[in-house]
Amino acid sequence: MLIGLDPRLTPDLLDCLMRMGHGDEIAIVDANFPAHSTAAHTYMGAPVVMAGLNAPEVIGLICALMPLDAFSDHCALRMEIDGAPDETGPVHDEALRIITAAMPEGAASGQIARADFYERARQSFAVVKTNEARPFGCFILRKGVIL
Amino acid sequence: MLIGLDPRLTPDLLDCLMRMGHGDEIAIVDANFPAHSTAAHTYMGAPVVMAGLNAPEVIGLICALMPLDAFSDHCALRMEIDGAPDETGPVHDEALRIITAAMPEGAASGQIARADFYERARQSFAVVKTNEARPFGCFILRKGVIL
Repeated sequence: MLIGLDPRLTPDLLDCLMRMGHGDEIAIVDANFPAHSTAAHTYMGAPVVMAGLNAPEVIGLICALMPLDAFSDHCALRMEIDGAPDETGPVHDEALRIITAAMPEGAASGQIARADFYERARQSFAVVKTNEARPFGCFILRKGVIL
Repeated sequence: MLIGLDPRLTPDLLDCLMRMGHGDEIAIVDANFPAHSTAAHTYMGAPVVMAGLNAPEVIGLICALMPLDAFSDHCALRMEIDGAPDETGPVHDEALRIITAAMPEGAASGQIARADFYERARQSFAVVKTNEARPFGCFILRKGVIL
């Protein structure tokens, strides 16, 4: 426990957010996602495991500390639903409310097909494995700057 | 996610429970406990971190898989409240209900002073760090056998 920090934060997640710089991306994935095999390709090498928290809860923890990027097309991406790319599920709506509230002026969120998400996650800085049980409950956040 | 297993289980916790044998002890500790420095003395070397779960929730996960020991004085110990060793707090009552329901015939639970808990945890197989915010929310469970 540290003063002013959410008690649900782990040393690993805080370490990861501290190491990231402008433009580094972090994937927040659901409980079915291949988090360990994907994270082996990332800077962190292993997933940051957040047991007992769903995707919006973890996104809330991250957005409370990590600025989102206003200097790229999208500071956040949600995984598309297979066959219904423009529909969102409850997990997307819930997460996007948190993301939108945290976005700086000029920032925007977008979407990404499932197959493309896998590749994007492999190229990211870290994969955060959540307890999210709702399908397609996967997101990418891009770190911005604090001026 | 695996069939029949609670989705809140992590690879690390399951690995730890699988490695433990009869008589090995596991400490489940609250968010203020020195989990990392203590776990450095244990077999696992680092704490198993369960970010969004409190102590009774983690004890429930463990007791669903790990048999408690009926061949020793106590299969479970709760940390005593400083200055009031025989009083229990809500976290103790909640956890002990779960433990008692999981105890085999002949098994019993007990209590341990805070200073002694620290030493007992160092000698245990693993320390599981929970999000438990209630004071003295620390427990030790002793693995039994499946016959």
